[in-house]
Amino acid sequence: MSELLNKGILRLDWARGHMPVMKAIGERFRRERPLEGVKIGMALHAEAKTGVLALTLADAGAKVRLASCNPLSTDDSVALALREEHGMDVRARRGETQEEYYANLNGILDLGPDLVIDDGADLIAMAHTSRRDALGNIKGACEETTTGVSRLKAMAAAGRLEFPVISVNDAKMKFLFDNRYGTGQSAFDGWMNATNLVIAGKRIAVAGYGWCGKGIAMRAKGFGAAVTVCEVDPIKAIEAKMDGFDVSRMIDAVASADAVFTVTGCKDVLRREHFEAMKDGCVMGNAGHFDNEISKADLEAASVSSSRVREHVDEYAMPDGRRLCLISEGRLMNLAAGQGHPVEIMDTSFAAQALSAEHMILNHSEMGAGVHGLPERIDRAIAEMKLASMGVEIDRLTESQERYASGWEEGT
Amino acid sequence: MSELLNKGILRLDWARGHMPVMKAIGERFRRERPLEGVKIGMALHAEAKTGVLALTLADAGAKVRLASCNPLSTDDSVALALREEHGMDVRARRGETQEEYYANLNGILDLGPDLVIDDGADLIAMAHTSRRDALGNIKGACEETTTGVSRLKAMAAAGRLEFPVISVNDAKMKFLFDNRYGTGQSAFDGWMNATNLVIAGKRIAVAGYGWCGKGIAMRAKGFGAAVTVCEVDPIKAIEAKMDGFDVSRMIDAVASADAVFTVTGCKDVLRREHFEAMKDGCVMGNAGHFDNEISKADLEAASVSSSRVREHVDEYAMPDGRRLCLISEGRLMNLAAGQGHPVEIMDTSFAAQALSAEHMILNHSEMGAGVHGLPERIDRAIAEMKLASMGVEIDRLTESQERYASGWEEGT
Amino acid sequence: MSELLNKGILRLDWARGHMPVMKAIGERFRRERPLEGVKIGMALHAEAKTGVLALTLADAGAKVRLASCNPLSTDDSVALALREEHGMDVRARRGETQEEYYANLNGILDLGPDLVIDDGADLIAMAHTSRRDALGNIKGACEETTTGVSRLKAMAAAGRLEFPVISVNDAKMKFLFDNRYGTGQSAFDGWMNATNLVIAGKRIAVAGYGWCGKGIAMRAKGFGAAVTVCEVDPIKAIEAKMDGFDVSRMIDAVASADAVFTVTGCKDVLRREHFEAMKDGCVMGNAGHFDNEISKADLEAASVSSSRVREHVDEYAMPDGRRLCLISEGRLMNLAAGQGHPVEIMDTSFAAQALSAEHMILNHSEMGAGVHGLPERIDRAIAEMKLASMGVEIDRLTESQERYASGWEEGT
Amino acid sequence: MSELLNKGILRLDWARGHMPVMKAIGERFRRERPLEGVKIGMALHAEAKTGVLALTLADAGAKVRLASCNPLSTDDSVALALREEHGMDVRARRGETQEEYYANLNGILDLGPDLVIDDGADLIAMAHTSRRDALGNIKGACEETTTGVSRLKAMAAAGRLEFPVISVNDAKMKFLFDNRYGTGQSAFDGWMNATNLVIAGKRIAVAGYGWCGKGIAMRAKGFGAAVTVCEVDPIKAIEAKMDGFDVSRMIDAVASADAVFTVTGCKDVLRREHFEAMKDGCVMGNAGHFDNEISKADLEAASVSSSRVREHVDEYAMPDGRRLCLISEGRLMNLAAGQGHPVEIMDTSFAAQALSAEHMILNHSEMGAGVHGLPERIDRAIAEMKLASMGVEIDRLTESQERYASGWEEGT
Repeated sequence: MSELLNKGILRLDWARGHMPVMKAIGERFRRERPLEGVKIGMALHAEAKTGVLALTLADAGAKVRLASCNPLSTDDSVALALREEHGMDVRARRGETQEEYYANLNGILDLGPDLVIDDGADLIAMAHTSRRDALGNIKGACEETTTGVSRLKAMAAAGRLEFPVISVNDAKMKFLFDNRYGTGQSAFDGWMNATNLVIAGKRIAVAGYGWCGKGIAMRAKGFGAAVTVCEVDPIKAIEAKMDGFDVSRMIDAVASADAVFTVTGCKDVLRREHFEAMKDGCVMGNAGHFDNEISKADLEAASVSSSRVREHVDEYAMPDGRRLCLISEGRLMNLAAGQGHPVEIMDTSFAAQALSAEHMILNHSEMGAGVHGLPERIDRAIAEMKLASMGVEIDRLTESQERYASGWEEGT
Repeated sequence: MSELLNKGILRLDWARGHMPVMKAIGERFRRERPLEGVKIGMALHAEAKTGVLALTLADAGAKVRLASCNPLSTDDSVALALREEHGMDVRARRGETQEEYYANLNGILDLGPDLVIDDGADLIAMAHTSRRDALGNIKGACEETTTGVSRLKAMAAAGRLEFPVISVNDAKMKFLFDNRYGTGQSAFDGWMNATNLVIAGKRIAVAGYGWCGKGIAMRAKGFGAAVTVCEVDPIKAIEAKMDGFDVSRMIDAVASADAVFTVTGCKDVLRREHFEAMKDGCVMGNAGHFDNEISKADLEAASVSSSRVREHVDEYAMPDGRRLCLISEGRLMNLAAGQGHPVEIMDTSFAAQALSAEHMILNHSEMGAGVHGLPERIDRAIAEMKLASMGVEIDRLTESQERYASGWEEGT
Repeated sequence: MSELLNKGILRLDWARGHMPVMKAIGERFRRERPLEGVKIGMALHAEAKTGVLALTLADAGAKVRLASCNPLSTDDSVALALREEHGMDVRARRGETQEEYYANLNGILDLGPDLVIDDGADLIAMAHTSRRDALGNIKGACEETTTGVSRLKAMAAAGRLEFPVISVNDAKMKFLFDNRYGTGQSAFDGWMNATNLVIAGKRIAVAGYGWCGKGIAMRAKGFGAAVTVCEVDPIKAIEAKMDGFDVSRMIDAVASADAVFTVTGCKDVLRREHFEAMKDGCVMGNAGHFDNEISKADLEAASVSSSRVREHVDEYAMPDGRRLCLISEGRLMNLAAGQGHPVEIMDTSFAAQALSAEHMILNHSEMGAGVHGLPERIDRAIAEMKLASMGVEIDRLTESQERYASGWEEGT
Repeated sequence: MSELLNKGILRLDWARGHMPVMKAIGERFRRERPLEGVKIGMALHAEAKTGVLALTLADAGAKVRLASCNPLSTDDSVALALREEHGMDVRARRGETQEEYYANLNGILDLGPDLVIDDGADLIAMAHTSRRDALGNIKGACEETTTGVSRLKAMAAAGRLEFPVISVNDAKMKFLFDNRYGTGQSAFDGWMNATNLVIAGKRIAVAGYGWCGKGIAMRAKGFGAAVTVCEVDPIKAIEAKMDGFDVSRMIDAVASADAVFTVTGCKDVLRREHFEAMKDGCVMGNAGHFDNEISKADLEAASVSSSRVREHVDEYAMPDGRRLCLISEGRLMNLAAGQGHPVEIMDTSFAAQALSAEHMILNHSEMGAGVHGLPERIDRAIAEMKLASMGVEIDRLTESQERYASGWEEGT
């Protein structure tokens, strides 16, 4: 067996061994086969935890085809193991070109999926534009990430979304954990792997104080960094301030930042004006879905040359001699330079995906076109499975407390 | 001038000097007089920050009458200063009996208020039951706290709420800050004042991991305590776990807890079974609205004697020789043993109150009976005033970013 | 019984009940009477925990006379209780004048003490200068605090120290805990009591990053503040930086600091140039031993007027309209505005004092004039008593580990 | 150029670019050539930062030969680059056998070094036992790590150390930073790379609360873990407790620990009794110098089988079905599974090494056999260079403050 294949098999097994909620769901799926014959087209980061999701959906009876949702996030060892050991149709390669990337997505839609599982909404957008041939068969979709959900809400608002989508990202068991503790940890996995630089004592600017930004800022602090948060939302800005962080405009932040992390879901967060004001030696990394948060076009225009200075780092020489570094070409550093979110975090995120897929197949006919939440009882069921897997017992309200909680007569 | 009066005047002035958002609102109110002639009946903790709110509403033209929403939370110096210096009708005394407490609330309703500002919903409940005579004149109410909002939602669900109420607690500029950073700080103000005991190295159990509980747990950790969180909601329980806290049932937590703080909005959170299992020397404090979170009846029944062992602490002797301590008779320790939430925190909370009062008077006729949120634009306006007062500038989306954020076409 | 006396009795009893190491030492002292007939003159903060120390020394057979080491740190209720209930000769009053302060210290030396227990080295300095009459009888002294130890080392270096002194401050069970966790907590007790202002979201400058400064900075961070550390020692400065704090010169720090805490042991840390550059509204507090860290002379000279604006706060109006606030006249805010270090912290600090007193009386004749450490075995014994009182069990090296730890042959 | 060589060159250049103190020292060394003709035998982790040290010593005129101090810590790319690009004599290979390891160390001593730079004291121990032929020429040595210093102190105590050694580890600019922030960060670099498991929500036991243990515990907490500290020193145990950690015996800790990190400098910290009580799924990693902290012999004896389950993880199956995982065969996970300490951390550690080497060569004749500290002025000079490189300015004492700090007359 090749070393690569062996590595992929081990990584898949290791992931599976640390995803107890997925294990419980998989056992039920194998018994009940709720997705029997359903064709599922997925575009997710093609690595170990995603592999477990794909296999779990297959256990439910689905025919699954998988591409990556990012050209740099595929774990080739896992892709190989899925193909060789599990006969899964995986169309992804780490470092694929833009052309390959879209060819792979098109390949997913060629399957004629009943259900689409998307991360960033590229598949869904294609099905509504260049690949309207696939649209007819699609019963619904599940979307993984904040950026994708934003796009879908914009589509829905414009009256352009033609099938129901479950916003898996809005499940509490997803965004409260994956976006915060997942991104918080994996961004620094990427950082350490890419740079071997210290975090303590650095001034780190974080663009965006949503759940992902909160996670990164919290971990930067936990590692001994001083943090500046940049936001466009005044309430989140005050929240950051009250959490002990400095808050400023990006143009002010870059003057003293040793590193800048973007995680906004918006584009051009770092652009020419910022590169021109940036501290010498600053290292930039993106943990948002798309690679447009840090404008590479502007960075190339503003610099006189660039070179790869470490495996995952490019250095741009500025006309005045400053040098700026970019991790993983601005693609999400968590996966491009690290191993992505921790396994246990994806256990609940993908539990929400698996149960959303089941829920969509069972209920799509009653769900109109638009963006839907995961029903609260499913969210709560995931939490209960997770607690059980952790061996944690919690209190239950007594009858008299239940009555009190739903009453109003008792006061001071 | 008496020493008490002087102290109250200073405390009011000090508070006013540190409430820049209220100051800005007050200046507009004095110009525009949006509450001219409106009779406002308030039951809030009668201390300095509340005094500033009352004076600000008076600046808007309202006739204000104030009682306390808790028998132990009045600052007598401030109550005196409000009466003597500002001619405010204040009906509150620290340590008032249950009879006085209700007499004072009745006194508020005797005013025939157009608007009720409540904290815990006692006034609103009375207006719907024993004081239905006052109901007719009430255009609406504003409710301050989680506990009160829960009661009101129960009333609304039962079809019993007969006028519109704005849930000020649900404004982001209230619950994100007041409940978390306010309660987090003031609970320990109460603790330190009451006990002079160290927090570092202690095991502290926190009942409830809502916004208040998060605040207390975060500060306990910030002070060097180990924390056990007790919850009934599985999602909040996992959140606590992922925040690094131990999570267990209360009956397990009390065996090792050196202190227990309750902040749930529910009753009998600590009860006989817990007292019987509690570690010797455990100090209990409540930071929830009502004094029923720790069952004093059970504590008295389970103990053989009790005595006051420090100004704000009673000690209960258990049959087996263990001694359990209770701060401030189980009334909210933040106010009963400390000075309540920090001034700046109440600046935004009471900005939300003042603007809710204005909004209610202007719009009550279009608002049906029920619980309403504060409009998002008001919430945001408070945030912008607060940022300005802090001298913090934040980014604004560029036009092209605005377009991107509301679009969906651009992808990988 | 007067309310004040009752309060003092309760505070003494409460402190005693939470000082298990002192309790164990006291029990042995009552049996063994190691200080039978020894005259002890003490100048320590005359409050509850000190009371327990004084009573413990009396239990050992000593004749104790107590003054305060700071005009604002006496707890009058405790002083009264020590006098009335325990017949202790206490010469201290909260708010005593400079004259009274020195009269009280002289009164201590009038006792003709065999042993001096000092905090800040005022008694010891007097015995070497104005009160050389007392010098002859003094066998030795014990010094409590960093500032006093610095003075004594300067005396010793100048060949002026004429009897042995144990630097209790250098015991690990003292400085690692008292200076860090004690000062860290009690400084904020003072802050909250004096100001009722929020800590979260503030920028707090801390002058000095010794053990006390580390404690304050750590707790400021734990409360949600952003912290700037000012230091003169480059190694401590880098340590602060690596702990995630900003580090700058004080003149730069005051421009953005909402509060400044001094805890350096040096004088004029804040002086005219700083007041002139300070942010409007800045609140200053000192947690160092002497009230000269913030130059009141400079503050008075630089300002146009001042007034008491809250019980423990004076506000200085600057010519340009800025207003600067000073807590407790620059005396240590922990005790002047709060209740001093937590009880359990003083348990081990005063255990070190009590055992130092015993050690000095037993061994002074072999100890030359100079500053001596507490023997390591006594330090360790205190730690073991403390662990036992906390119910914590720790590992012991196995025989083979002992051998390994003291050997060198085994390698890779 | 081979990919490996290119990677090594980039890593060396990257490290050099982020070691400003070493750069300044190197510039002086090139001018002054203080080590002209000195033969230096080094055994350090043969990776990028060590490469910079070796090149800096060569810049000073030394003839350097380098082996690794650990069979799993060599970065083959860097070793290659040192050989090919810089003509350095490097004798190290990742994954070398015990035989190769000792052959390489012997090769270092074959050089007949004037100066030995050691990490763990293996070279020094050999020079005193099996390789006494090399002893005569050795003027002195510099030792990098806590474990090595312990061995050397044992040697010195036994009268067996025959030349002077500078304990670089005891320089403040080394142990305060390298051991704490270095180990703290790199241990989790190793963890994330080896396992892709979440840290938040886990219970992590840390054996040893010296500077390294403090670093690991602090970062574990910063990542959202709950931490149990195991210690044999009662003072450190209380310190851990007061830092908010649980403290217990290891045999109690392993029952609930999801992961155990050892960093004690002692052997058999985890042994049969612990493996038998350990929670199912526990992952063990060592960050102490030698691979004997976790007894592999006991682990093999207690288990029924083992297999490699991920690139850096072996799983041991226990007779009762539990599975225990070990990272990097118990060798220090920081380097074996991660990239070792961050570059900037090693900048000051290796500045201390470079200046110790210079100091030893200049002063060895006045230094007796034994363990010596680095002179404080050198320590301080490193701090000042580091501060300058960070662009941080700090306060200097005024003349009057200097006088006050060295005086004792001024008091209350």
